[in-house]
Amino acid sequence: MRKNLIFKEDEYQQRLQKTKESMDKAGMELLLVMDPANMNYLTGYDGWSFYVHQGVVVSLDEAEPFWFGREQDSNGAKMTSCLSNDGIFGYPDHYVQSRYTHTMRWVAALLREKGLDKKRFGLEMDGYWFNAKMYVTLLEELPQASLIDGTNLVNWIKTVKSPVEIEYMRQAARICEKVMQTAIDAIAVGGREKDAAAKVSAAQIAGTEEFGGSSPAIFPIMPSAERTSTAHLTFDPDRRYQENDVVLLELSGARYRYHAPLSRTVYLGEPPEDLLKTAAGVVQGLQETLAFIRTGVTAEEVEEQWRKAIAHTGVVKPSRVGYSYGLNYVPDWGEHTISLRPGDKTVLAPGMTLHFMPGIWLDTYGFECSEPILVTDTGCEKFIEFPQKLFVK
Amino acid sequence: MRKNLIFKEDEYQQRLQKTKESMDKAGMELLLVMDPANMNYLTGYDGWSFYVHQGVVVSLDEAEPFWFGREQDSNGAKMTSCLSNDGIFGYPDHYVQSRYTHTMRWVAALLREKGLDKKRFGLEMDGYWFNAKMYVTLLEELPQASLIDGTNLVNWIKTVKSPVEIEYMRQAARICEKVMQTAIDAIAVGGREKDAAAKVSAAQIAGTEEFGGSSPAIFPIMPSAERTSTAHLTFDPDRRYQENDVVLLELSGARYRYHAPLSRTVYLGEPPEDLLKTAAGVVQGLQETLAFIRTGVTAEEVEEQWRKAIAHTGVVKPSRVGYSYGLNYVPDWGEHTISLRPGDKTVLAPGMTLHFMPGIWLDTYGFECSEPILVTDTGCEKFIEFPQKLFVK
Repeated sequence: MRKNLIFKEDEYQQRLQKTKESMDKAGMELLLVMDPANMNYLTGYDGWSFYVHQGVVVSLDEAEPFWFGREQDSNGAKMTSCLSNDGIFGYPDHYVQSRYTHTMRWVAALLREKGLDKKRFGLEMDGYWFNAKMYVTLLEELPQASLIDGTNLVNWIKTVKSPVEIEYMRQAARICEKVMQTAIDAIAVGGREKDAAAKVSAAQIAGTEEFGGSSPAIFPIMPSAERTSTAHLTFDPDRRYQENDVVLLELSGARYRYHAPLSRTVYLGEPPEDLLKTAAGVVQGLQETLAFIRTGVTAEEVEEQWRKAIAHTGVVKPSRVGYSYGLNYVPDWGEHTISLRPGDKTVLAPGMTLHFMPGIWLDTYGFECSEPILVTDTGCEKFIEFPQKLFVK
Repeated sequence: MRKNLIFKEDEYQQRLQKTKESMDKAGMELLLVMDPANMNYLTGYDGWSFYVHQGVVVSLDEAEPFWFGREQDSNGAKMTSCLSNDGIFGYPDHYVQSRYTHTMRWVAALLREKGLDKKRFGLEMDGYWFNAKMYVTLLEELPQASLIDGTNLVNWIKTVKSPVEIEYMRQAARICEKVMQTAIDAIAVGGREKDAAAKVSAAQIAGTEEFGGSSPAIFPIMPSAERTSTAHLTFDPDRRYQENDVVLLELSGARYRYHAPLSRTVYLGEPPEDLLKTAAGVVQGLQETLAFIRTGVTAEEVEEQWRKAIAHTGVVKPSRVGYSYGLNYVPDWGEHTISLRPGDKTVLAPGMTLHFMPGIWLDTYGFECSEPILVTDTGCEKFIEFPQKLFVK
């Protein structure tokens, strides 16, 4: 079958090498990677098959990881991953969502067959894709293994992007610019929210003339009016935009599952004074903070800088002001590693990519204006050029 | 804040009552519900906030469940759920994706405060949303609680739909018909796959004139050519359709997160004889099996009927031929309860909704033709009227 890899094989080799070094430092001999973005990162595997149990097993003693998943998805692994066909193992369909047995029994049998059942075994304990039942079943099936918490081990390697990854993120940024402009153009008094969201969703996939998009890891977040007073609601399928609506837009472009998220805010009508004041304060704080971000400062220092910059405005932001992001699948484009908030002592390094996201949700409305950025040797670089302001229509 | 519920309060009451009965039968006093579809089912809560830890706790001793989640999402819970404001608890932002502490420590403290830390506690052990670390942390924090496997407890209640749920699923079906027609119209030799997928994605959200859609739980699955030889790949963002492409379409409409999934297959050009034969066999098997489905037969009998119906064609389908579906979020519109396959002895009952999905993936191409159906007293009813055939363009 034709291999359809979006990176050269040696890039996968480098990622694997870094993973093995991290494993060894953590005292692991094996790592079970079930996060689909991490599986993709290490092997290229790309399918919407993560709703059933699947994973990639990395062994310090083996040159190549092996893939396991549902038998009907194994052709997909052969086609999209860099693994050789004899590193792909499909389980029979009766294991899928079964109340009579569990996929981890099959996985444990495979590990025994390979003589790997007595190893020191890292697990993505706090991820979405390694659940409590899997853990309990492995404990039972592998009594001689040592099970070790390997949460975010691969995620931390992902925080520093390679030149090719950055190129894909730039392509995603071109898509995102089109997506955001589409949204702002589509929102108007009397228009239906669903129709604006449909245009946004189409723009995310259509991408640009040069770069086709992919479905982002988070659906279009575009609440209006009172629904903007909270994070993470979206359009109302039955509502039309009204005079004096605030509309929040938190939208991403994605290219080969690499993201470029951006937030902006639209007001329909004459904005109230306090919203204009909030907007001006946030935009100024954003600019001052971006000017501060550079290699060598810590995540918590960035947040501190933001807090100082907006102190005079009265705006208070009790949640983190940003996080690392990149390659991902649902439900999150964030990497679950760096958070820009008090206590996070990560030292920023070249190649890290952050979504600086100072979203403000007050009692009756919200305001968002964010930037996806790349940490460089001397400062930071915005992925996207898009006006930083309240859009008034 | 305005409450924006899509069901009457008494429907939530009935669901809660059934949940409590199931809990009591299973020996539980408390149930921690973290699956977002189950949270929505019991309370109405609807936001893309499930990428952080959140849940609903049902207690046999309390009339109303309580909600916990990230503080910045608590206004969303007040707005979209049927819960009273004093049943909504937000945790501080430093718990989010933290490597220094864990949300389950905060949850355990809340349970202690409420005097609930010594209860018999059901957990969605094998779901996507209750991970191994949460389990280990609760074990540590609640040494006097009994932790019980409550996997799919709410999912099983969801299998039988109410009249209003069925009405929303019919609305989703109207959306799906438009989505499928949009896809078939958009696919043509020389066209770009991404542009067809963009139109599909827009149609899913735009819905019909009467019914706005919502983003389905699975992105548009529409692979072409060799990529159809496996399940769960999608469009190639860089490719154009070519003469003699097979294109699989597994697409859903969704209304208020209730789904209507449908699969069809398109061929561009003159289809080869063996594909036509496979298509004819599958369609005949589909029709014979649908005629067999009725209240009182078991899930495995349905699969057996399918197997008999296609025996003469030489087509072999080693995976399940269907599953229950309904209200859901990413990554799956399936309910993880009924599977149409050998060994599943669930007796079909009125109000159950199944996606009968006999997808065939051969070595060089696949063929799909499926139907979402409602089990009735006397048989089954198709949600969607759409020609059952290989679409040739």
